[in-house]
Amino acid sequence: MAVLFRSSSSDNAQRWREALAREMPELEFRVWPVIGDPAEIEFALVWHPQPGLLASLPNLRLIASLGAGVDHILSDPELPRHVPLVRLVDPYMTVAMSEYVLMQVLRLHRHEPDYAAQQRAGIWRELPQSNASERRVGILGLGELGRDAAVKLRALGFDVAGWSRTAKSVEGVASFHGADGLGAFLARSEILVCLLPLTSETENILNREIFARLPRGAALVNAARGGHLAEADLIPALDSGQLSWAVLDVFRDEPLPAGHPFWRHERILMTPHVAAATNPPTAARVVADNFRRCREGRTLLNVVDYEAGY
Amino acid sequence: MAVLFRSSSSDNAQRWREALAREMPELEFRVWPVIGDPAEIEFALVWHPQPGLLASLPNLRLIASLGAGVDHILSDPELPRHVPLVRLVDPYMTVAMSEYVLMQVLRLHRHEPDYAAQQRAGIWRELPQSNASERRVGILGLGELGRDAAVKLRALGFDVAGWSRTAKSVEGVASFHGADGLGAFLARSEILVCLLPLTSETENILNREIFARLPRGAALVNAARGGHLAEADLIPALDSGQLSWAVLDVFRDEPLPAGHPFWRHERILMTPHVAAATNPPTAARVVADNFRRCREGRTLLNVVDYEAGY
Repeated sequence: MAVLFRSSSSDNAQRWREALAREMPELEFRVWPVIGDPAEIEFALVWHPQPGLLASLPNLRLIASLGAGVDHILSDPELPRHVPLVRLVDPYMTVAMSEYVLMQVLRLHRHEPDYAAQQRAGIWRELPQSNASERRVGILGLGELGRDAAVKLRALGFDVAGWSRTAKSVEGVASFHGADGLGAFLARSEILVCLLPLTSETENILNREIFARLPRGAALVNAARGGHLAEADLIPALDSGQLSWAVLDVFRDEPLPAGHPFWRHERILMTPHVAAATNPPTAARVVADNFRRCREGRTLLNVVDYEAGY
Repeated sequence: MAVLFRSSSSDNAQRWREALAREMPELEFRVWPVIGDPAEIEFALVWHPQPGLLASLPNLRLIASLGAGVDHILSDPELPRHVPLVRLVDPYMTVAMSEYVLMQVLRLHRHEPDYAAQQRAGIWRELPQSNASERRVGILGLGELGRDAAVKLRALGFDVAGWSRTAKSVEGVASFHGADGLGAFLARSEILVCLLPLTSETENILNREIFARLPRGAALVNAARGGHLAEADLIPALDSGQLSWAVLDVFRDEPLPAGHPFWRHERILMTPHVAAATNPPTAARVVADNFRRCREGRTLLNVVDYEAGY
């Protein structure tokens, strides 16, 4: 039996082949588009598979996402929903995401982008500065990633709140949930960090109305999915001063097309979807664990709820 | 009796007057150059006092620095060394310094300056990325500030070492000391952070020979004093690729003079001495505690050893 691998970057395939071979040497590794006999494909390990690909595999027993999210798989209208789908929850990636979030929150808290602009302009000027304990950070999403980031921001002394669809509790973090809790959460978030899964409910959640409910001059960090941001609403919010900065790691179209106004806006700080890249050596262990569980009929880990969409 | 206050910025005086009045309402607050009767000055609370000022105060009982360092006071050749001198050790400032160090180490670790350059050039390219546990950070100086930064970097998973003049131990941090320990410490420091006191021994410690002993492409963060850096050695080290980036918060002349080459160098990231600004509301409590100890003949805290120079 074989695993069908499909990722967005070809250099990844070799690293995954080696890493997975260390875990399950008996498993044949086929890299799309070379599928061979579709009936021999037992597992799929994929990022953004084209519509219909997974439905064409008659003996598929498990679909594993190459990332923490699964929106890129659920968007397939022909997705075989009788086959279980698992998210990739790799502690290595969680650490990477928290590093990214901490770095960006610290930069915004410490006015680093302002100081960089001052350096370019030859200006020596100290800006008013509070300590982390006086800075209110809000995390949208308290799943694996949001929870880890919240705990680490709290450990640095930030005044952290979190918002999630259903009630969750994280020690030392003010927790809000549901539509009813969103207003109070936003009203206190000087730095808003999005770590939500992308679902029909959260698409475009970062929009003009949400920005208007933040304190004036708040900053935004989106490290989740480009689809969370209503793109047309961002630049007006920055230009009016309602938002001071936007840090974006993810975009609706990736790579971000040349000429897109985000590239050149002086209050948009972007990175090319690097907050938490998949790391084959550690991720292969997590993936192989689920493959083995599937074969042995044991409980799968991090199974997606097709209803909830994550 | 009165305290003589002298800082580098006039807006600070009013904040200090109010903060110290809350702690010691009976203490008259005189702002240099208005000294009044020099015989009435019991305490000096100063930053970079001009040579001879402190020697002109016949009844001076205690000199308190407005910062964590005292090099700006010890440089006075007429300094009355029979009067005790105390450093300002304010937990609020320690937190601020660690925020700054963490922010800069995370930026360098996560290639943030490279991504910023890529954004300006319209380039979408992912760079190889390791986790914090695979990144070796070296802290020069394990005093109050170095120790706090080391512990917090360790908590984020970084592989941290520290170097100090005399042996010190910090849990989870590889500790090196003295001239004998410097080589091994430098050889492992991919990101070198200077938090040393400025003394005759540490002046110009950040020089060509030290840079040559770091791994090629190492990055430097100087958040201590401008005098630690041999300025003429920095740009050649950056231009040759021996150093990848230098983050500088402090300079020999502050404000950094217009036209100084550091302003425009593309691999120098500067901030205007803001890593750990004195915060009067919290610092006044620390200062007042020492003033009261002095009056009551109790042990002073954070007394400077005039021999060691810190």
